[in-house]
This record gives sequence, structure tokens and C-alpha cells, in this order.
Amino acid sequence: MNIRAAAAADRDAIWKIFHEVVAAADTYAIDPKISREEALAYWFGAGTRTYVAESQGRIVGTYILRPNQSGGGSHVANAGFMVVPEARGQGMGRAMGEHSLNEARRLGFRAMQFNFVVSTNQSAVRLWQELNFEIVGTLPGAFRHPEKGYVDVYVMYRFLSG
Amino acid sequence: MNIRAAAAADRDAIWKIFHEVVAAADTYAIDPKISREEALAYWFGAGTRTYVAESQGRIVGTYILRPNQSGGGSHVANAGFMVVPEARGQGMGRAMGEHSLNEARRLGFRAMQFNFVVSTNQSAVRLWQELNFEIVGTLPGAFRHPEKGYVDVYVMYRFLSG
Repeated sequence: MNIRAAAAADRDAIWKIFHEVVAAADTYAIDPKISREEALAYWFGAGTRTYVAESQGRIVGTYILRPNQSGGGSHVANAGFMVVPEARGQGMGRAMGEHSLNEARRLGFRAMQFNFVVSTNQSAVRLWQELNFEIVGTLPGAFRHPEKGYVDVYVMYRFLSG
Repeated sequence: MNIRAAAAADRDAIWKIFHEVVAAADTYAIDPKISREEALAYWFGAGTRTYVAESQGRIVGTYILRPNQSGGGSHVANAGFMVVPEARGQGMGRAMGEHSLNEARRLGFRAMQFNFVVSTNQSAVRLWQELNFEIVGTLPGAFRHPEKGYVDVYVMYRFLSG
């Protein structure tokens, strides 16, 4: 697997992954009917760095890295990750997560925060805990899961030193 | 005091308040050098409702109300408040806070979340607690205060029923 900065030529592959992930509506608080244009404007937003993960010449995942806030909050990074369903359970999320932590350190961030980890997304919660993120907040019923109804959401955080 | 939806004619007054609040750099994670254009684009953003508080014919405060997330997170409201320094300690924040809770209920939101309450902003923390918000998360060192250095930030949350 190779992880690299996304290029304009990757936009079709990214939209395919993005659309598949948000259409499932079980992990991201994004309108499942978001348009290609809006989705790519978000994923390639100002101040956002966009990456893709390739395996055997095919893009199987993508992630973004950006400051979570501006001004006095800009030393904390935020990241978001998406993996194609067929490539899940193969360490793609972990590889991108580790890559994002290294990139965040390289860029001088002091910490990383995930604002919205849906509690029922157990593989994500476990992965981030294994990468030394802690649950620093619980938002009660903040996500409406398509099958499970209102479920809690975690705010996860870790420092980047060391 | 009167609280009402903001109109285009209020933009100058809003920018004056906004600029004064973010230039102090001690409560909002917004670049203190943000331009008028960027500030008003944020405060009057798509999906955002903007209000002003008038006292004796003068605009002394402004707040915004919007969904905190899209899709499966859109039942939780978010709000942000600004009061001119000369009018602080006179109940303006409380009046706008109560107004925002009523508006959020009227619009069908189930809860309200503040993502970034700087812990050293004690009057805000106390006010939101008095309005039945709870600290549901603590972001360690997530705000760089101009005098106090890195300080914690609270995520605050309350349901809107009742």
C-alpha cells in the first residue's frame, strides 16, 4: 500500500468512496444525498490536505487533515478517513491513521481531535484507542443511526508529542 | 432589549462587534485578523440563522443558530454569541441564550451543543451551566490563550425537551 497526497486525477475515485460511505449514513454526519460537487469542495477545502491510499494500483481509501479550529485553536489537527467497503479489515484505516499522525507532527500540530466518532462504529473507536486516542467527551444521542436510532457520539483526542 | 432576526442593514454593527470580540483572541478560536468579508460570510453562512439584540435602539449583541452537523447529526443545534464589551454583565448573553433555546425548540432541534467553550471564559461557562448545559467533554490544552497559554476547552450540551 502507498499513501500519497491526492491529485486532481483522483477526484473520481474519491467521490466514489465518499458517496459509498455517506450513502450508508451510519458513520458520518453528512447528508447522504450530498452532491459530487459539494463533497469534493468539502474534501478538498481551503486549508485541508487530502491524501489517498493505493493498493495494487487502485485507490482504496482517502483521508483529510486540517486544523480543527482557527486562531487560538489551530494547533489541534482534525482528520477524517474513508475506506472502500471491499478493502475494510485489511489495515487501511490503521495505515492512514498512522500516516495522518506523522503528517500532523511534521506540520507542527500539538494534538489531534476527532469531533464525531459514532459510538456504534466500534471498529473505528477501537482503532483510535489503539492509536492512543482517548474518549474525552460523550455527546448523548447526537447521531441518528439508520437502524439503531439515536446513539451517542464520542469526541476523541490525543497529544502528538512522543 | 429586543432580539430579532438580523437584516442586511445590521452588517456594519455586527462586524464591529465581531471584530472587537475576535481581536481580543481570548474566547473564540477564530483568526483575530479575519477580514470583514470572511467574518460576515461565516456569521451569515448557508444554513445559519443570524440574530441581533438591540438595547435603546443600538445593537449590543448578536448570535447565530445552525445545525451542528449535517445528515444524522442535524437534530443537534449549535449557537455562537457575541456581546459588545460595554454591554457585558447586563444579562445580554443570558437573554440571547434563552432566545436561542426557544428558537432551537421552535425549529425542531432535540439538543444544543457548544463545541468550544474556553475554560477560562468563566462567565460563559457559568451562564451555560445556569441554562442547564452540562460539560460533556474536556479538550486538554485545545486553546492558546493570549495571556494564559494553553488552556482546556469544554464541550457543552443539553437536551431541549421540557
